Amino acid sequence: MAFLVFEGIDGSGKSTLLNLLCGKLKEQKLPFVQTKEPGGTKIGQKIRKLLLEKDNTHLSPLAETLLYYADRRQHIEEFIKPHLKKNITVVSDRYWASTSAYQCGGRDISESFVESLKNQICKDCEPDLWILLDLPTETTLKRLFVSKKDNRDRMEMETSSFHQKVRDYYLQLAKKDPNKWLVLSGEKSPPLLLKELMSHLNSKEILL
Amino acid sequence: MAFLVFEGIDGSGKSTLLNLLCGKLKEQKLPFVQTKEPGGTKIGQKIRKLLLEKDNTHLSPLAETLLYYADRRQHIEEFIKPHLKKNITVVSDRYWASTSAYQCGGRDISESFVESLKNQICKDCEPDLWILLDLPTETTLKRLFVSKKDNRDRMEMETSSFHQKVRDYYLQLAKKDPNKWLVLSGEKSPPLLLKELMSHLNSKEILL
Repeated sequence: MAFLVFEGIDGSGKSTLLNLLCGKLKEQKLPFVQTKEPGGTKIGQKIRKLLLEKDNTHLSPLAETLLYYADRRQHIEEFIKPHLKKNITVVSDRYWASTSAYQCGGRDISESFVESLKNQICKDCEPDLWILLDLPTETTLKRLFVSKKDNRDRMEMETSSFHQKVRDYYLQLAKKDPNKWLVLSGEKSPPLLLKELMSHLNSKEILL
Repeated sequence: MAFLVFEGIDGSGKSTLLNLLCGKLKEQKLPFVQTKEPGGTKIGQKIRKLLLEKDNTHLSPLAETLLYYADRRQHIEEFIKPHLKKNITVVSDRYWASTSAYQCGGRDISESFVESLKNQICKDCEPDLWILLDLPTETTLKRLFVSKKDNRDRMEMETSSFHQKVRDYYLQLAKKDPNKWLVLSGEKSPPLLLKELMSHLNSKEILL
């Protein structure tokens, strides 16, 4: 049983790899649930709508940060912790590192403020492993543009320099805590990435 | 020009007095705007809906606190500060003291957490005067029950001991900063309360 989190900028391929992992877990008959942030609970879905709606472009960056953490706390109490308590593995698409990377890296929100929120809100619920899908910004933006065109949401419409700062922040987080972070290159093929991930999980005896 | 905030538990009569004050300001041709929390902005209206919906009874108390502060930050940046900057008085129904009273007093959320949120989110926007409408809990609950019956929202449906703790917390806040708080007895008639409030504003030279 473990709490595994996938991180990376939009278009990095994290959702594809997450789905492949979940397929593998199913095959191996390991009990697990798949979830995401924002929007992992019913209340979280409503918060997610607020965060990603295109007409909310004037949302204050501090208010945005607080909304992400409100969604997160609800997710922890209503979904993540109850499953872990029952020995069910939780696989999440994004968690607190997203807020740090996007809000501190991308939007210049004070690191000490986000750090204090994280310490208060997530202290009872830390992941066993973060999996970062890393990719040059130009590649991810090209992928997004081709796949979504005019359907990109408020976050996906941000500039290239915004995405670059987010990427750099992710890499910093991974460097600070190498034992908890696995950085994978999103330029590799999904089957190869799955192989690398499974081998890492086995060598670290996560999921056993 | 001033930033004035009305506080008190539901049914204490704060909205009635707030409306009377606004009538007076209009009469005196003083530029002012009337607002409220949660829900003082378009985004805030959506957050307000989330907070007060009856089917969200399983909302985590920490998530609730963060939602109130998200609404507040949007309110500060989009509404309160821009008006004060143009020398327009802002009269608000609730502000940060409500979160302290309801969440720390009523729901036992850590005071140091709410204090740190307040310091981060409201440090650039402190009221010139808080006006607390104080009333014994039984009286306010009776008023609410008579006027709203089954139409009470999620907050208004809380127990009597919850409302008592909120009331006590308000009185503590007022005691700590007597220069900034005016405590009025909600058992007096609205015209008498308006007279007391106007006389206080004049003696403190607020609004001049």
